[in-house]
Amino acid sequence: MPHRYFTTEISDGTATLRGADAHHLARVMRARLGDTVILCDGNAVEYTATITGFGDECVAFRVEPGYPSAAEPSVEVTLLAGYPKQDKLEQIIKHGVELGAAHIVPFFSRYCVAAPKKEEQKNERYNRIAAEAAKQCGRGILPDVALPLANFGAVCRTFAQYDLVLFCYECGGAPLRDLLAAAKPADGEKLKIAIVTGAEGGFAAEEAEMAAKAGARTVGLGPRILRCETAPLAVLASVMTLTGNLE
Amino acid sequence: MPHRYFTTEISDGTATLRGADAHHLARVMRARLGDTVILCDGNAVEYTATITGFGDECVAFRVEPGYPSAAEPSVEVTLLAGYPKQDKLEQIIKHGVELGAAHIVPFFSRYCVAAPKKEEQKNERYNRIAAEAAKQCGRGILPDVALPLANFGAVCRTFAQYDLVLFCYECGGAPLRDLLAAAKPADGEKLKIAIVTGAEGGFAAEEAEMAAKAGARTVGLGPRILRCETAPLAVLASVMTLTGNLE
Repeated sequence: MPHRYFTTEISDGTATLRGADAHHLARVMRARLGDTVILCDGNAVEYTATITGFGDECVAFRVEPGYPSAAEPSVEVTLLAGYPKQDKLEQIIKHGVELGAAHIVPFFSRYCVAAPKKEEQKNERYNRIAAEAAKQCGRGILPDVALPLANFGAVCRTFAQYDLVLFCYECGGAPLRDLLAAAKPADGEKLKIAIVTGAEGGFAAEEAEMAAKAGARTVGLGPRILRCETAPLAVLASVMTLTGNLE
Repeated sequence: MPHRYFTTEISDGTATLRGADAHHLARVMRARLGDTVILCDGNAVEYTATITGFGDECVAFRVEPGYPSAAEPSVEVTLLAGYPKQDKLEQIIKHGVELGAAHIVPFFSRYCVAAPKKEEQKNERYNRIAAEAAKQCGRGILPDVALPLANFGAVCRTFAQYDLVLFCYECGGAPLRDLLAAAKPADGEKLKIAIVTGAEGGFAAEEAEMAAKAGARTVGLGPRILRCETAPLAVLASVMTLTGNLE
């Protein structure tokens, strides 16, 4: 399988790769003129590209006409995750990207144990982790990690932009398959799904009410209590399974 | 929610808790005579238990008649996982137990990077991790972690004991929902499912052939390449979703 790289510099049948990826291809992989790689524009279009030259920390290509990336799921899923302790957010990002999430939005809420600290700096690292995961698993887009939302009210105010908001709550709710079967995307768009899961402390009852008022549907995850780093990935795998994107 | 502990010492309306759990209940939780906890026999039967006495590192209870644990899934899933590097097997165990796996069996195969080392000692630790996860997520049984099988031939020789063996292979295969719909359990038993996933290096083509000959069904996990610690958990979540055990 040829190597895959993301670059936005693709136009008129040529493309350029720069920086660490160019270094990787030229020095680590020791690519030669005429070798072929796959370039992805980060917008779900891929190109078969042939190396035509090596510059100073850049590689030039001739590209064939683009084709849609086969790796993107038919639904656009945003993971809204309560900010967990330790390195659990990194696990959610890494595995969430593999499982097909398009956006990851951490948030602080009533029972969060973690507190905001150097979030701009951390956000850069989180986006690097997302980009690495996207490259490794062969995504057609670069999923993004947002800066954390400051409270649960801010989370609820984003709900209007989704076709279906799944609020994962211990106290249970409708089965996922029924909610997915009833959800309809806007004309010609992918179905936009938000998965909302809590941090270690879970959600306050008032937050659950607030979510329901803002249009979220409560889903139960069964009788076993999932950890805060497991729940978003389990629901994501469920959604991908039920929409035919994990087969 | 009352605290839950596992103990096998339950008979004639009384029960005893010993060791670290007794210490936890008596010293850390500062329980008192008459307080109520849930005891689980590790065989999916639970008891409401009232403390009747504290001994030297043990706690005595009066128990009400047992009732079946609501936390056990309707399918019995064994994760057969290629032995990964670093702490990834621990992640598979921890999250696999949460998601409802009954047994976890690591194995070595052609492309495994990890090599056997102090496995008896590690196995004790793995089983402790499984037991901790079982307690935390409220399981009704204590899922077990087997000593690693030495090669893929040994893995294939276990296939006869399952109703359905799902061999997860990059090259794709039948959708999981179709395989699950066609599988039938033995009379009065739970459906026994094995999920077989590779280590970092994946499977050799000969191993895939060997698995198919031994009765495994090949399943594809979609166009994104899942990491070796993500694949077993994603398939487990899929199986639990499709069998109604994650809702």
